[in-house]
Amino acid sequence: MRTSQYLLATLKEAPKSCKAISHQLMLRAGLIRQVSSGLYTWLPTGLRVLRRIENIIREEMSKIGAIEISMPIVQPAKLWKKSGRWIEYGTELLRFKNRNHREFVLSPTHEEMISEIICKEIMFYKQFPLNVYQIHTKYRDEARPRAGIIRAREFIMKDGYSFHVSQESLQSTYNNMYQIYHTIFNRIGLSFCVVQAESGRIGGRLSHEFQAYSENGEDNIAVPIILNNSGDFKLKGNASPIKIQAKIAIETMRLIEAPHVRSVEELINQFDLSIHQVVKTIIVRVKNKYVNNSCSLLGLVIRADHQISSKKVAMIPEISIPLSYIDPKDIHVLTGAHPNLLGPINLSIPYIVDYNVAIMSDFVAGSDVSGKYFFGVNWNRDIPLPKVADLHVVSPNNLYVNDDNMLLIHNCIEIGHIFQLGQKYSKLGLNYIKKNNKHNLIVEMGCYGIGITRIIAVIIEQNHDKNGILWPDAIAPFRLAIIPIDMHRSVNVRNITEKIYKQLLFAIGADILVDDRKEYPGTMFADIDLIGIPHVIIISDRCLVNQEVEYKYRKKNEIKKIKLETLIQYMVKKIVCS
Amino acid sequence: MRTSQYLLATLKEAPKSCKAISHQLMLRAGLIRQVSSGLYTWLPTGLRVLRRIENIIREEMSKIGAIEISMPIVQPAKLWKKSGRWIEYGTELLRFKNRNHREFVLSPTHEEMISEIICKEIMFYKQFPLNVYQIHTKYRDEARPRAGIIRAREFIMKDGYSFHVSQESLQSTYNNMYQIYHTIFNRIGLSFCVVQAESGRIGGRLSHEFQAYSENGEDNIAVPIILNNSGDFKLKGNASPIKIQAKIAIETMRLIEAPHVRSVEELINQFDLSIHQVVKTIIVRVKNKYVNNSCSLLGLVIRADHQISSKKVAMIPEISIPLSYIDPKDIHVLTGAHPNLLGPINLSIPYIVDYNVAIMSDFVAGSDVSGKYFFGVNWNRDIPLPKVADLHVVSPNNLYVNDDNMLLIHNCIEIGHIFQLGQKYSKLGLNYIKKNNKHNLIVEMGCYGIGITRIIAVIIEQNHDKNGILWPDAIAPFRLAIIPIDMHRSVNVRNITEKIYKQLLFAIGADILVDDRKEYPGTMFADIDLIGIPHVIIISDRCLVNQEVEYKYRKKNEIKKIKLETLIQYMVKKIVCS
Repeated sequence: MRTSQYLLATLKEAPKSCKAISHQLMLRAGLIRQVSSGLYTWLPTGLRVLRRIENIIREEMSKIGAIEISMPIVQPAKLWKKSGRWIEYGTELLRFKNRNHREFVLSPTHEEMISEIICKEIMFYKQFPLNVYQIHTKYRDEARPRAGIIRAREFIMKDGYSFHVSQESLQSTYNNMYQIYHTIFNRIGLSFCVVQAESGRIGGRLSHEFQAYSENGEDNIAVPIILNNSGDFKLKGNASPIKIQAKIAIETMRLIEAPHVRSVEELINQFDLSIHQVVKTIIVRVKNKYVNNSCSLLGLVIRADHQISSKKVAMIPEISIPLSYIDPKDIHVLTGAHPNLLGPINLSIPYIVDYNVAIMSDFVAGSDVSGKYFFGVNWNRDIPLPKVADLHVVSPNNLYVNDDNMLLIHNCIEIGHIFQLGQKYSKLGLNYIKKNNKHNLIVEMGCYGIGITRIIAVIIEQNHDKNGILWPDAIAPFRLAIIPIDMHRSVNVRNITEKIYKQLLFAIGADILVDDRKEYPGTMFADIDLIGIPHVIIISDRCLVNQEVEYKYRKKNEIKKIKLETLIQYMVKKIVCS
Repeated sequence: MRTSQYLLATLKEAPKSCKAISHQLMLRAGLIRQVSSGLYTWLPTGLRVLRRIENIIREEMSKIGAIEISMPIVQPAKLWKKSGRWIEYGTELLRFKNRNHREFVLSPTHEEMISEIICKEIMFYKQFPLNVYQIHTKYRDEARPRAGIIRAREFIMKDGYSFHVSQESLQSTYNNMYQIYHTIFNRIGLSFCVVQAESGRIGGRLSHEFQAYSENGEDNIAVPIILNNSGDFKLKGNASPIKIQAKIAIETMRLIEAPHVRSVEELINQFDLSIHQVVKTIIVRVKNKYVNNSCSLLGLVIRADHQISSKKVAMIPEISIPLSYIDPKDIHVLTGAHPNLLGPINLSIPYIVDYNVAIMSDFVAGSDVSGKYFFGVNWNRDIPLPKVADLHVVSPNNLYVNDDNMLLIHNCIEIGHIFQLGQKYSKLGLNYIKKNNKHNLIVEMGCYGIGITRIIAVIIEQNHDKNGILWPDAIAPFRLAIIPIDMHRSVNVRNITEKIYKQLLFAIGADILVDDRKEYPGTMFADIDLIGIPHVIIISDRCLVNQEVEYKYRKKNEIKKIKLETLIQYMVKKIVCS
């Protein structure tokens, strides 16, 4: 490919509103463009990466006998009503009516549809197990799309489904899938861990999440460690990472009057609470450059028995250092609250919460009105969970202490999820099978997802430097770039470039980009580094004098001179045989 | 691939409601399943064919420098409001609101979006021309999905768009596209013709349709011929095929009272009409087996100056032979109509129309109420166009006579369409470019579509026999099938099958299906024929005695014995080198 015939679409700067580094680099390197909130166009460079990841997944899926199908994106509502998810799925399910006033959904997932199809197609016991998947567009009507394609509305998933007539058969396919997911993510070049997970709205029993490490992750994964006396730590052998998340809510949120309560202790005594159920909010000042809409304050929500750690809080960029607490008697003036105990629910200023608070369920908080308290509060259900951070003094940095373990916290992004669904969906289709006198056929189902578009952002989160993206070779949009210096003036550079390009096309295939633009060398170097092409050949009159070209391996940023006569052989060794 | 691990999903019979042979075979051969009207799941065999066609298109597109991108399926309404198509596109455009009450559409096409993207990305004159395409899901909210995927609601298209700074540059890319479309359709194995077309709702100037011959086509393409005295004909040299379609409507439909008119002649005289503007309807009886909902009558709509041809009508399967006309005085009893002139608009029985009537616009017809006539009638706008056939005596069979030419009519399906759009869409983005002081940049745009899913149905319409599909080698779901006879009893058959499978996998690749089901040979032969795998090897004890296997080429249905020792070489020659 020649840049003159290509849509390079690199940008010097990303819009200021893009916070995540992967979002910035995907825009700057010309991988995607936003069409509307959560909707993106994949430009040629982005699509090349996407196709490579899809093909790695296809190769690995075929190794465990999974076969590819493709289901429609538009699904009739009746399937979702039958499973109950028409209601359960909530506002993320996009519902619409067609011209005949029939109800449909834009598919966020396909458990209902695949169950219906398989239960109609598979008539005999001996046709099980069956393992199918698709790679297709999904739509989730996200309330708050964020960080580019990390949380988009339209995205591409690999969603796979398996069907079995025994738990043993399901477990065997599940185990294969567990292994092959490791292979896939390793081939793609991801750093990740696996946590046993709750299966959420999809329902079912055993389930594992594949979580990739990323600063911009929304999930908090804790790795058990052992701390020694000098403050160093090592990973605890055999212990599995766990996801830090709130327990399931039992209570409903309610406002309780207790006009005579004057402190947290009195509140605990009067209602017979544990102090582990109560949160408190401390207000600090924000650095000038982070002041937004003239609000210069930030709330820090911690457990009532905890203290703010000045050391840890100093690492949160927004907060003004040295810490500047707000005097309790100024709180009413600055926030409008009249509290005995300041709480997050009616708070008029932004706030962040401690890890230990983020996992609380059915907790108690002040209402910001004197003598009234909220009981049975739950994050996300009653109040959105904001940024989570490590704020309190009990444990060392980035450590979260639960009853048994010392845990190191990582921000992570979910990249894959496998589930044992049991009969939740397959039994919807079983009515049909029963009609055919197969009363004994109990179909067990598994489902297996990979967030393909999201993976690209995660890879970039994990692989970049100040100049741009550092693609793993296996998924780079181009394996090799050729940068000819002054080819529009030098016949020699032009001829040698053409010759090398043709020889390399023959030797290593189509994944070569020749930058034939009439641009300054600096612009070409910057663009090729930004796009993150792993191998680069630079052709210039200066080197050709000695029958040499320069070779750069992007990740190491070392430049090496290679004799023309050995170049092709050298590149084949670097690219094809590596 | 082994059938035991595959989703073969063949059916003995297709549902009676499926009329088109391609629809029947796609269901029976396990290519697709209907989810809802116009919505289909692609099963593994269908998806394999789809991917092959997509790859042929990608290969050819890259030869003319077109680069692949991918745009979202969900588009913001504002793009469509800006172009005017939010209104113009009518009820086929599916509109919906998301959770924030913002308006969106499910994309039937992407002219607006690509124009917006390109006009933002391309800032400099020298970056033109640019030629991009995508292969992606589209949605059109069809009023009447029909014939399986021939007219579906959700379907896959290749839609390409090119941008130019001169008409000459557009013409050059248009010419390349015109050529490469021929190459693509030839590689896929389609029989087709090209007609210069009106560009419809997409708008613009020059445009060509690629039309594939098919009995189930909705378009009527006329090929100019020369008829000699003995009734034989030959194609007229250098004359282009034309699409038979109605002229653009000018009048609005209105009901006119003319109580004293007693005949077509009087109607023509009173309103100064041409007889070529008036239609009449004749009612005949239907064959018993075609009687539907106890309606045993059929209307035949022809031009008022024409006569029904008994010979031609005898070839329409529904009509009872010998022709049994309904006496005018019985018409009221049988249809409820009180006509001076019987017309299609209020007719309570089904009817078909003559070619010459199908192309009429602003025509006059009886109202089925005495003394009242409809003026300014147009097909589709005022009344759906039903089945079109050759009904009248003036011209020979399947010939439509216009003023200058004798024309042979073919039913066709549109498989591709290329347009020169001019500045209709690109000027929407130009506002942006003007802001950057590039007043002189006038962007010419072309757009180029291929209906990928539809092509599969058309291929089957053109390539089948009584046993099933006859895939062209280039797009067959599998190139080769191996049918072992009694492999579950014979160790020898099983071993030889495994050995041959492995050797052929190595020699010709992954496109092999081994039918390892415990089925009767007849069932296996029938399924493999139905699916239409071009090359078949049959392995049986009977032949192995002589160190032989049988080879069948599906299209010729000849069986040949091949010595085991030469088999691999023979198959490589047949499959790889052919």
